Amino acid sequence: MQAEIISIGDELLIGQVVNTNASWMAQQLNLIGISVFQITAIGDTTEHILQALQEAESRSNLILLTGGLGPTSDDITKPALCEYFNSKLIVDESVAKHLTDLLQKRGIRAMERNLKQAEVPDNCKVIHNPVGTAPGMWFEKNDKVFVSLPGVPYEMETIMNIAIIPLVKEFFKTPTIVHKTIQTFGIPESMLADKLISWEKQLPDDLKLAYLPSPEGIRLRLSIKGENKDDLEKLIDHQVNELNKIIPADIFGYDKQSLQEVIGIILKKGNKTLSTAESCTGGLIAKLITEIPGSSNYFTGSVVAYSNKIKEDVLKVNPENIKNYGAVSQQVVEEMVKGALHLFGTDYAIATSGIAGPDGGTEDKPVGTVWIAVGSAERIIAKRYVFGNLRDINIRRSSSTALNMLRRFIEGTL
Amino acid sequence: MQAEIISIGDELLIGQVVNTNASWMAQQLNLIGISVFQITAIGDTTEHILQALQEAESRSNLILLTGGLGPTSDDITKPALCEYFNSKLIVDESVAKHLTDLLQKRGIRAMERNLKQAEVPDNCKVIHNPVGTAPGMWFEKNDKVFVSLPGVPYEMETIMNIAIIPLVKEFFKTPTIVHKTIQTFGIPESMLADKLISWEKQLPDDLKLAYLPSPEGIRLRLSIKGENKDDLEKLIDHQVNELNKIIPADIFGYDKQSLQEVIGIILKKGNKTLSTAESCTGGLIAKLITEIPGSSNYFTGSVVAYSNKIKEDVLKVNPENIKNYGAVSQQVVEEMVKGALHLFGTDYAIATSGIAGPDGGTEDKPVGTVWIAVGSAERIIAKRYVFGNLRDINIRRSSSTALNMLRRFIEGTL
Repeated sequence: MQAEIISIGDELLIGQVVNTNASWMAQQLNLIGISVFQITAIGDTTEHILQALQEAESRSNLILLTGGLGPTSDDITKPALCEYFNSKLIVDESVAKHLTDLLQKRGIRAMERNLKQAEVPDNCKVIHNPVGTAPGMWFEKNDKVFVSLPGVPYEMETIMNIAIIPLVKEFFKTPTIVHKTIQTFGIPESMLADKLISWEKQLPDDLKLAYLPSPEGIRLRLSIKGENKDDLEKLIDHQVNELNKIIPADIFGYDKQSLQEVIGIILKKGNKTLSTAESCTGGLIAKLITEIPGSSNYFTGSVVAYSNKIKEDVLKVNPENIKNYGAVSQQVVEEMVKGALHLFGTDYAIATSGIAGPDGGTEDKPVGTVWIAVGSAERIIAKRYVFGNLRDINIRRSSSTALNMLRRFIEGTL
Repeated sequence: MQAEIISIGDELLIGQVVNTNASWMAQQLNLIGISVFQITAIGDTTEHILQALQEAESRSNLILLTGGLGPTSDDITKPALCEYFNSKLIVDESVAKHLTDLLQKRGIRAMERNLKQAEVPDNCKVIHNPVGTAPGMWFEKNDKVFVSLPGVPYEMETIMNIAIIPLVKEFFKTPTIVHKTIQTFGIPESMLADKLISWEKQLPDDLKLAYLPSPEGIRLRLSIKGENKDDLEKLIDHQVNELNKIIPADIFGYDKQSLQEVIGIILKKGNKTLSTAESCTGGLIAKLITEIPGSSNYFTGSVVAYSNKIKEDVLKVNPENIKNYGAVSQQVVEEMVKGALHLFGTDYAIATSGIAGPDGGTEDKPVGTVWIAVGSAERIIAKRYVFGNLRDINIRRSSSTALNMLRRFIEGTL
């Protein structure tokens, strides 16, 4: 049992659009235990679509197509599908009604080319698209399944989630699979692997572990196949508990949680507030925190103190300290935390000061040197990091490291 | 003459990695006038590599492969290439020396699996990799060319830029192509197309125009093929001048320039300084400005005033105005600009206040309502926008719109 993905669209072949649809679909298929054998991106031509379908059918059991279903004339996927399956286009009444309703809502009168979207090959099962005009289509042929989906990512993802994944699970009788992702931050992959050697050894054979490194830390994904969902979840939860005993402070969250989301949860729970005083991160920490809906409940604000004068005037950093130790120093970030706590009246504050690059490095403080401090009225902790040479990476790593320091500060593990 | 791209790696098929390499390569090939017929992502198996090579060779003249060249054991591209070309692996002395030198610099002693990277099929031209350990490889077979490149994006891009693109141009005697991208902001695609009707009509037949929409505005790309580069550039420059007469204020830059880069150039040139006072954008404007190296020369800092209290205490917004008009109002953003100008002592300031969502909307001020103001000591201009329902998009559009307002304010076209 394996699947293939065929992505249709000239925009992919001129490099205008990155094929994020294919990797998203591949992820979803892998999560239900179906491996993807090949991903093929092709142009908007009948001949090429037919050839790709034929090749995919010769190799795989499930073929997912995206793209080529829009209302413009260069979309030729549906006629190509008719040719492939020896079927013909008919108007689907439910799609036609959905289309007219949708366009009416937007105050648009349906044009002929819009109504062409209601035409589907007469051998397919029509899959309702609740968030757009082009329906999904499900074809069966000799125990093989072909699915055609619109190329708009949001529409494709919605139809996959609500209809295609359940239908595929049923049709191919895929086993129950339970996954759990454990998110860690600040521990290098090799060190993490070392710490987990004996835990990994005792894992049941059918429990699979994957290391997924990302700029926001290393994620550990546990997966297990079986029959009974509750049993599988119990088994995984037990192993997550064991893991928590080994690396309690390194784990910051589960599944898709981000550091800023976890910090929001912790602050809300404790009814605490936060502010930031940022130099080298230039506002990115505030930007990450305010990505989270409802962050105004615990985030008061930030001073991006890019110039020394602002560090002195607004955050009340002692000019003598800047003169004696430099703006990138323990003394200065600690005073920046104090300044933010005072100015914003918050329970916690984060401060950063560093040399993001490409210029400004010295022998003592090379490009990538960053001081980060977190603290409260009672206590301030500052740490020095040396990241790398790339400005962008230095800013991002400083920001996520600062968020993780705050998390551990509040949890008492810093 | 057409090309294909084969991307090798299980990480693509489980959806862990998005195939940005393929779209980048497709872009570069299209820029030199070579169209891409198919992009195929396959797993790390000899059989699949051989099959993909065969299929690609039957259709196209240039086949680019990426991935499968790392030092780990699951990389099997080179033996597969040997099998395909009926050649054998030999140690390339120049690669071996480069490898040993590079590892030595990093303080690592070369291991056997590292030195395996110095092995190449004996029928290829070795392409030096100045930024990594795995070399590129160039194969010729019956007037067709196969190129194998490492999968690390930075390494692949470097080798493509310095070696493969020039070699491909020479081998396939591609025509000279000149491109120029004109960046616009704030004008919808349909309105832009309306304004440009007569200009488009008078364009020479061989001058191609493409509309490239993106969240940061619509880019217009002019391309022309020919013999003499200077003549082609003159022709394009003339048309860009004409375009500038029609939409002078909508054009903010050329080729890969970002709004924040253009603003940096304008501020540096005029020896002016900037600060921001951000509410709904939560620091993103400051983050964008400080992405640019050297921004500390003109950017002083920002107050992210997420709470009303901070708007009042730090930016000296009149509490009466917040009470009477709400935090999302013309009065408040104008006072925020004044507050930033005063606090930071800058020539210009930007302020934002809006309802990013998902909550907080009212009938008068639905989610997506944003007030943006830009100004100097002499003058402040504020505008009201209503973007959409998505928090993330609202924050991004508010930020880029604010940057564009500042650009037009300084240029005197707002």
